[in-house]
Amino acid sequence: MSTETADELMDATYTALCKHGYASLRMQDIADESSKSKATLHYHYESKQDLLYALLDYLTDSFADRIETLEGETPIEQLRSLVETSLEPSEDDARKQFRTAVLEIKAQGPYDDRFRDELTAFDRLLHDRIRILLEDGQDAGLIRDDIDPNETAEFIVTVLNGAQTRHVAVGHSLECTRAMLETYVCHQLLAEDVDRTEVGFE
Amino acid sequence: MSTETADELMDATYTALCKHGYASLRMQDIADESSKSKATLHYHYESKQDLLYALLDYLTDSFADRIETLEGETPIEQLRSLVETSLEPSEDDARKQFRTAVLEIKAQGPYDDRFRDELTAFDRLLHDRIRILLEDGQDAGLIRDDIDPNETAEFIVTVLNGAQTRHVAVGHSLECTRAMLETYVCHQLLAEDVDRTEVGFE
Repeated sequence: MSTETADELMDATYTALCKHGYASLRMQDIADESSKSKATLHYHYESKQDLLYALLDYLTDSFADRIETLEGETPIEQLRSLVETSLEPSEDDARKQFRTAVLEIKAQGPYDDRFRDELTAFDRLLHDRIRILLEDGQDAGLIRDDIDPNETAEFIVTVLNGAQTRHVAVGHSLECTRAMLETYVCHQLLAEDVDRTEVGFE
Repeated sequence: MSTETADELMDATYTALCKHGYASLRMQDIADESSKSKATLHYHYESKQDLLYALLDYLTDSFADRIETLEGETPIEQLRSLVETSLEPSEDDARKQFRTAVLEIKAQGPYDDRFRDELTAFDRLLHDRIRILLEDGQDAGLIRDDIDPNETAEFIVTVLNGAQTRHVAVGHSLECTRAMLETYVCHQLLAEDVDRTEVGFE
């Protein structure tokens, strides 16, 4: 399969998943979003599940690229960029629908090893990036020495998961969690002698 | 319907939901867990959805009773009891399966107004109880005056949601989040002059 075809099928899977949700998504829905027939899809991917595994893998790779180079000069500002990327408001319906579909897929974790593996890879990626930013922050004297970068990264990943879940389930504002994470970073993580305004806090 | 029958049907719905998950649950599965026939179930509840709405309502009421009187002398200890109640480890499979089913239902929030209403009622209940504990803690001089009880309660509810989501999706330890919440309460929320050991921190 050419890279072009692969990219097209991933785009189609993404769009169809947003439109129909995980539970009622059919192979035909994905074909409808692409220039290919359902038969062609079946030639490359055995089932809708296979397309979804490939999509999660593809999204994890894209996310890895995005968080490789985060905006901001200091690790603190880069951490803020990462939080903003994860909690981007759902301005368009498609993004909200995608978050909903991902939550459906998360609920499949205990029953589907491939989903679980893909979800775990994404979770680890996010965690490791945050841990490294916290370690870099400690090296630069910006983050307190007495916090554990590993545990703190776990906590932040948990908060990001919670924000997404509550946003889907009860419409809780992502912006509200973002503000609380700012407070958390500023009060709990910043080293005492750091000038708050210098690292972007008002 | 007698209270006994209502309770029996809620138990049966709970057990069937844990066993089969939300997506593949059928009215017959619920009947199989009770002494009633499927026809009797249909006499009282129009559909599987109606039974699930009733179950969420029932669980919210039970949770309200449980968190009315929390173990512990001080608001801090009561907050810890509330966190423990929310993050009880999944020792038996049934509890893990129930958390998974709830996550499936959360992902239905955007599509099903009744689910959304039930989920919102539960979310508000948890939030308000935490907010009141924080306010009581401030009145007792145990919690810092400069934290906003409302925003802080939102943050803690978000953390609890995140812990449950990650537990289901990737098997992340609930105990780990509990420990991080302890640290958060101890370092971020406790008033400076409070003796940590007196409110149960080591």
